[in-house]
Amino acid sequence: MRVADYLANYISELGVKNVFMLSGTGSVHLDDAFAFQKDINHICARHEAAAVYMAEAAAKLTGKIGVVIATTGPGGTNAISGVVEAWVDSTPVLVISGQVNTKQISKGVRSFGVQGFNIIENVQHITKYAVQITDPYSIKFHLEKAIYEAYSGRPGPVWLDIPFDIQAQIINSNELEGFNIESKPKITSEIKINEALSVIKDSDKPLIIFGQGVRSSGAIEEFKSFLENFQIPAICSRMSFDILPYENPYYFGMGGMRGHKAASILMKEADVILILGSSFTHAYAGDSYDFYNQDARLIMVNIDNSEATKPGLKTDTTLNIDVKQFINTANNLHKKNDFNFPNWLSRCKYLHENLLSVDDSMAKNPINSYYFVECLNKVSKENHIFINDAGSSNYICSQALKLKKGQRELTSGAFYSMGIALPLAIGASATEKDAQVIAITGDGSIELNIQELRTLSQNNLDVKLFIINNGGYASIRKSQDEIVGGGRYTDDEEVLNFENVAKAFELEFEILDNYETLEADLATILSKSGPVLIEVVCDSKQAIIEPFNLNFTI
Amino acid sequence: MRVADYLANYISELGVKNVFMLSGTGSVHLDDAFAFQKDINHICARHEAAAVYMAEAAAKLTGKIGVVIATTGPGGTNAISGVVEAWVDSTPVLVISGQVNTKQISKGVRSFGVQGFNIIENVQHITKYAVQITDPYSIKFHLEKAIYEAYSGRPGPVWLDIPFDIQAQIINSNELEGFNIESKPKITSEIKINEALSVIKDSDKPLIIFGQGVRSSGAIEEFKSFLENFQIPAICSRMSFDILPYENPYYFGMGGMRGHKAASILMKEADVILILGSSFTHAYAGDSYDFYNQDARLIMVNIDNSEATKPGLKTDTTLNIDVKQFINTANNLHKKNDFNFPNWLSRCKYLHENLLSVDDSMAKNPINSYYFVECLNKVSKENHIFINDAGSSNYICSQALKLKKGQRELTSGAFYSMGIALPLAIGASATEKDAQVIAITGDGSIELNIQELRTLSQNNLDVKLFIINNGGYASIRKSQDEIVGGGRYTDDEEVLNFENVAKAFELEFEILDNYETLEADLATILSKSGPVLIEVVCDSKQAIIEPFNLNFTI
Repeated sequence: MRVADYLANYISELGVKNVFMLSGTGSVHLDDAFAFQKDINHICARHEAAAVYMAEAAAKLTGKIGVVIATTGPGGTNAISGVVEAWVDSTPVLVISGQVNTKQISKGVRSFGVQGFNIIENVQHITKYAVQITDPYSIKFHLEKAIYEAYSGRPGPVWLDIPFDIQAQIINSNELEGFNIESKPKITSEIKINEALSVIKDSDKPLIIFGQGVRSSGAIEEFKSFLENFQIPAICSRMSFDILPYENPYYFGMGGMRGHKAASILMKEADVILILGSSFTHAYAGDSYDFYNQDARLIMVNIDNSEATKPGLKTDTTLNIDVKQFINTANNLHKKNDFNFPNWLSRCKYLHENLLSVDDSMAKNPINSYYFVECLNKVSKENHIFINDAGSSNYICSQALKLKKGQRELTSGAFYSMGIALPLAIGASATEKDAQVIAITGDGSIELNIQELRTLSQNNLDVKLFIINNGGYASIRKSQDEIVGGGRYTDDEEVLNFENVAKAFELEFEILDNYETLEADLATILSKSGPVLIEVVCDSKQAIIEPFNLNFTI
Repeated sequence: MRVADYLANYISELGVKNVFMLSGTGSVHLDDAFAFQKDINHICARHEAAAVYMAEAAAKLTGKIGVVIATTGPGGTNAISGVVEAWVDSTPVLVISGQVNTKQISKGVRSFGVQGFNIIENVQHITKYAVQITDPYSIKFHLEKAIYEAYSGRPGPVWLDIPFDIQAQIINSNELEGFNIESKPKITSEIKINEALSVIKDSDKPLIIFGQGVRSSGAIEEFKSFLENFQIPAICSRMSFDILPYENPYYFGMGGMRGHKAASILMKEADVILILGSSFTHAYAGDSYDFYNQDARLIMVNIDNSEATKPGLKTDTTLNIDVKQFINTANNLHKKNDFNFPNWLSRCKYLHENLLSVDDSMAKNPINSYYFVECLNKVSKENHIFINDAGSSNYICSQALKLKKGQRELTSGAFYSMGIALPLAIGASATEKDAQVIAITGDGSIELNIQELRTLSQNNLDVKLFIINNGGYASIRKSQDEIVGGGRYTDDEEVLNFENVAKAFELEFEILDNYETLEADLATILSKSGPVLIEVVCDSKQAIIEPFNLNFTI
């Protein structure tokens, strides 16, 4: 078989069901091998960055590696913004790129062959492993190593660049040597873990801030047991928004700049904060790490030590270990009621129930986008996957979505990449055929990957794509107003006519502009099969909740 | 003034008339400073890569540096594919990116602050100079050095990353220190140049292959004099297609894989080939450097020595100097009629006149795309700028366009980036308000930057955008047919309904599907002002001329 076929077979055997690609001459053998795999669909995107976003969604939903095929030259360079997203969001994605024939490769030249480019040199800092295959018989080794690296420690993207002649090279797959994973001796840090737990035990108001590390270490169920055992209130990061259902009794929403009001108070009141597998970014912890009680003791558990040593961040204890190891050790060391914070839990519950993002005053026209999300909460079901974009649509979802058990939510949680919602939605829907995708984007964001509307209609995916029309780059205009003075905006004064856009890309169109019928209208839309583009005409003057600017007390 | 204002003023004083941007919070001061410059327009793109392509067009037309403003994080990473294009195509472009506040920068972390990313580390290999500004008083030095580097030697892109606090920092512009250009002693190679000329003098059939280096070294007029003096036949590369008008008596079209038939024979017959400021790529010289007479002596003049030392390329003489120095020295050393090749020139002329790309058999329906270009030749005027995309539209233009004096042609000459035509057209039209832009793209390529159709309509630019509808990814399908067997395609089976697309992006629409009225229809379209999107329904089975596969003799 060809090297390309070996690759495609191997990835099929991993259980990967979809690869995302944009066809090209430089990747002809790769495209061919993947496109004609029996158990793998090939989704043809219109831009390689979008293909990577799609693969990220697949990886986040399945836990299996997301796979992208790109052609040489511009194919690979277009993919870079998607790969940075996967790097920042810690998503295991494998990009396989075509390259010119080996004999034409000349690494010191700006371009070589036809569209040849030294892509590997240029993705070293944004991948966990990136190599060019020079020996066809090394394919198994590099493929296995790439996949291993994509998952080991803090996950991230990997890249294999395969010259045209190597793609086509016939190999005997029995003669391939694989990658032997070196078993690393686990550092037993049970004593250190127990020391951290003792600090919590001695505290009055401990708070857990949990991040995506809980999911990527495969510890969601263990984390739920941990919460039951230790009875410590927990708030999520943007990346871990869908780890716990809203109804979990120890869960009090999202913290940070665009989080829940209650959670913001908890951050100010907590006396010990345990940060579990979260980057604890400035967007979360404050520009000057001042969104939390400055007297609180900070305990950080993160497999990536660079997160704990960021300038300005002062942690009291740092455990540079896998979240799952921490949780399992803790669960082994202590049983239910060893820890108990009833008053503090009551306070958390009180705040959580009394400081909602959505209230009755929002039931009016033009539609308030929080009210829109609340209506979605009412009509959505367990098999819904929510997808959100950057900007306002990101904030309204993190502040108003109440996820049910089984629901997932994907977004650009760390990088806020404008325009990511549509390709994420396509990747999610292609991956989970039995789910329905509710994607929420903005009138500005939709433009950045608008070409993928055709990928959506072509594949007839069950995606309901809601575009919040608030009259332009609302969140950027807000920054411009606040920072350099009002009324001087640098974006288009008009938004697109989305009915015409839907028609151009062969999508059914709906418009929602009345709060009174909104819930019923949404139920009708969700009852449809296939893709629908829905414009939600919202109040362009509506503010976004900024819990840390409110200075409320309760 | 703010650092941002200093930058904007400086760039305005250079005579730059347009900057290309996508607004963001991380670049608020930059956006503000540039957007409100009196003598600079700000064109808001819908994707940062497109903004870079637009700036490239501006740079190629004016010779002044192209300027892009991008925001932090995804703003910068989105720009990367554009920057690689500028790197490969040797275009002086300056990207100025926003960055998070200095105190939040942590280079070893995947992301920091809000959307922070270590962009400079990731563009080192695709820029001639890339720095983050850490001291506001260093702005003049780094700006001047960046612009110097963008032009010195082989031109290319440069990048300045400016943290939010530095953008806003108030400085006294009188206290800034600039960059002192070190004057490099010029290596006098007059003897070596004359040796190369002697080889030509002693030959029977010398041929010049000239590249973009003739333009970037500022030697177009000198090159025309050189041709007059030396009377050596010359053929162009893809990047230098618009240096000579078609009527120049020493000019015999374009060589290479997708060049003119006559030029392909000249490459096979020439006994000395002088490569002047061209990369002499595989697309031009053959996969195995076999598209030219293997007994010919090769003389290469290129400021970038890596081009002469590519694996497999054997040059007899390499002059690692500026093209202009070579031409001026040659013009000084010899006068008209020192060199004379009348029989060879007659042969060239005979081939050129008898091996045309377009013939009468193409006058039929469905429209042959070569015939379409021939009609454009007839109706176009001196102030037309042609813009072409990758794939079929690139080939039909290089093989059939006959440029008149004053006309320019821009395309992705070295990298063949799909979808580049639309942003190039926007950049060109914004730059040359008195010109009319004729852009030619494909039904596949248009999708990659389709969001910029709104930038086109918003700015009401005089761009006539022709979409060759040949039923899909024609040139990639051709590769698939030839390499892995026919009929297995990996792209959409249908093309977009372009009338609906035009409506969605608020553009006037025309469709051309009859060869008989084509010339008159084109004249009518070009007589309109403002943007028009025109679908040209072409023969999906039409072949592209492959001069080196024809094996014709004449």
